[in-house]
Amino acid sequence: MNILIKDVLLDRKIRDIFIKDGRIEEISENCKREADRTINGKDKVALPSFINGHTHAAMTLFRGYADDMPLKDWLEGKIWPLEAKLTEDDVYWGSKLACLEMIKNGITAFNDMYWHWEATAKAVTDMGIRGFISAVFIDMFDRKKGQEQIEHNIRLFELSEKYKPYVTFTFGPHAIYTVSRESLEWMRNFSEKKKILIHMHLSETQEETQFARERYGLSPTEFLESIGVLSDKFIGCHGCMLDEKDCAILRKHNAKLVHIPVSNLKLAVGRVFPHFLMEGIPFCFGTDGCASNNHLDIIETMKFASLLAKFFTNIPTMMPAKVTFDIATKVAAEIFFLGDWEIKVGNSPDIILVDTMRPELVPNFDIYSDIVYASNGYIVDTVICMGKVLMENRYVQGEEEILKNTKMVAKALVER
Amino acid sequence: MNILIKDVLLDRKIRDIFIKDGRIEEISENCKREADRTINGKDKVALPSFINGHTHAAMTLFRGYADDMPLKDWLEGKIWPLEAKLTEDDVYWGSKLACLEMIKNGITAFNDMYWHWEATAKAVTDMGIRGFISAVFIDMFDRKKGQEQIEHNIRLFELSEKYKPYVTFTFGPHAIYTVSRESLEWMRNFSEKKKILIHMHLSETQEETQFARERYGLSPTEFLESIGVLSDKFIGCHGCMLDEKDCAILRKHNAKLVHIPVSNLKLAVGRVFPHFLMEGIPFCFGTDGCASNNHLDIIETMKFASLLAKFFTNIPTMMPAKVTFDIATKVAAEIFFLGDWEIKVGNSPDIILVDTMRPELVPNFDIYSDIVYASNGYIVDTVICMGKVLMENRYVQGEEEILKNTKMVAKALVER
Repeated sequence: MNILIKDVLLDRKIRDIFIKDGRIEEISENCKREADRTINGKDKVALPSFINGHTHAAMTLFRGYADDMPLKDWLEGKIWPLEAKLTEDDVYWGSKLACLEMIKNGITAFNDMYWHWEATAKAVTDMGIRGFISAVFIDMFDRKKGQEQIEHNIRLFELSEKYKPYVTFTFGPHAIYTVSRESLEWMRNFSEKKKILIHMHLSETQEETQFARERYGLSPTEFLESIGVLSDKFIGCHGCMLDEKDCAILRKHNAKLVHIPVSNLKLAVGRVFPHFLMEGIPFCFGTDGCASNNHLDIIETMKFASLLAKFFTNIPTMMPAKVTFDIATKVAAEIFFLGDWEIKVGNSPDIILVDTMRPELVPNFDIYSDIVYASNGYIVDTVICMGKVLMENRYVQGEEEILKNTKMVAKALVER
Repeated sequence: MNILIKDVLLDRKIRDIFIKDGRIEEISENCKREADRTINGKDKVALPSFINGHTHAAMTLFRGYADDMPLKDWLEGKIWPLEAKLTEDDVYWGSKLACLEMIKNGITAFNDMYWHWEATAKAVTDMGIRGFISAVFIDMFDRKKGQEQIEHNIRLFELSEKYKPYVTFTFGPHAIYTVSRESLEWMRNFSEKKKILIHMHLSETQEETQFARERYGLSPTEFLESIGVLSDKFIGCHGCMLDEKDCAILRKHNAKLVHIPVSNLKLAVGRVFPHFLMEGIPFCFGTDGCASNNHLDIIETMKFASLLAKFFTNIPTMMPAKVTFDIATKVAAEIFFLGDWEIKVGNSPDIILVDTMRPELVPNFDIYSDIVYASNGYIVDTVICMGKVLMENRYVQGEEEILKNTKMVAKALVER
């Protein structure tokens, strides 16, 4: 499919962008090529799309069901009992709602860890975005459970062929306190052989660090290094408790991190991402799932991240707008091996068009500052993913059905 | 003017709301009254509108013009030189843009402090919302300047009659380090006589506290108490550096505070609002002006405030959703003497309708959690202020002209 975007702002100039099968073929002042679909870009800015580095998509089902509770009561009294009752159909609709919400916020790729892998894979495929999907891998140090999980993951890996190019299978070892060394070693070997990303919670809480010290006499990062799990395919999420030594290890192995500020604040984990130690470690932003953030909006997350960086380092020039924007787009694309994410001839980034005629973006002095500090996902008008238009004029095909069905499914779930 | 809102969700039940001249006359299941205007409330929730406790409206003109700079360079190199060139016309359009943005975000009343008082008063009146407007009062301890400012303020107070019921005149003594004791004492007397609110920056930074200690041997709050400025008409903004003793003083005088978390983070002031000390002190939320927050969205500010409260107290149950919502609506209304802000027969709150058929609000388990944790100003569909419909289906009369003119005015200003 060919798409022609006419008269759109790109790097402060009005241009036409011609896209063939997802690849940018021409950027010029007056493109004469014939297209299957032409989009009017007037008063809009073309930008690469956002990537959500960490979420649990189907947890949209629990949005607003239980907030403002102590962590233990919340998990044990509310979330876990509901998760035990989840069906494939629930997860399908929950994930579809998440995809819809992310498309509306200009996100075209996300990194997921949840139950009922295939339901999420189906939802992602039906919605036409990019899902890096892992099944939650928890064995609680039980060899039998570990072996079951390993077999389950091999099956899912094979199954994932069916959902290409939308779905990329990844490993989702939950955390060092829920997954055995043996299972992690198996994932390391399989990941090396098949080039599979490993997506894991890392140093989110003080309890996790304490657990690693007690069990292994090492920090979580030191432990993962000691068993060879760290590589450029390792993506550690949260990282609030990382220290200088941990960060040196991550840097050495070219491992990646995901910074998830909103969830860290809401769950009151006690510390934030250690900005001063991040030199040379690629990191992107994640929203987390809707139970601990409630909103799948990377623009919102960018504002939290940038302002918290300034506040906690006491340096108002920390994480400036353009740097923050790049972290959420091109750095994230590098982390997920999505190629060069800039809007240039020969590249294949997903593209969003932002409507500049909105009060919060006027007077339009600096699009990056306006996006990071003055806006939210609703500024996105059009979303193009892998050469297909997923949203135009803020409308996504079938959105009414998704809202209706997810509502029904969620209400049935809590009454089950 | 009479307005009938049909079939809207109010306290989880579908109702009709009949409003006459801004006052709620009937709430029932099937209202038969004749109305000048009927609004379809299907799939919408009726809520009281938001109040913005502190801003500098016309600073929308500087949005995105200069960010990510050290405070001193930013103020001295960028903001002050531009402010010196501001005309009445600039401030009129900048304020109009701010009003438009606030209406779009469900805000119908705001507390302002800026230059060119009458331009803001005109903008507020033309837009039909409620402005508590003060002129920045700075005398730099110069008696002659102080006297000029006093005369200027008396003139504005008299002029304000002309802009009723939209505009309420207030005093805007900038801060204890820019206004002399004599001027503050004069404002105290005039405020007592005429029942005028006093709107002042209070304990925003360490430098301010230090200044008060050096000049008066007291904290800013102790100094204000010593000259009798504190009362139920005193509204102190920011308050980051307040200590236990200060808060006891504010409590004793029934003074009010405005919590402005986004600006405090962005400017890296070093400390946040001291939640543990707030028992018994009424406070509401403010966005600050667009140079230090960039976005006039109280829903966004609520999320920052609620999450920061949890994180900094290490208590995940701190500032729960409904409490946060009430602070931004009914507590704020009390602070500004706007009466009972709940949607009940006999009350005259401004009303917003929120569209619940949006992905980020589904499955709709709890409207307060959804608003505070999962949304932003764009969920607001309809705004009714003082019995007039200012927005319906997210459209505000004349919005295109405001965007166009403000853009022109802002570009001319920076090139002047």
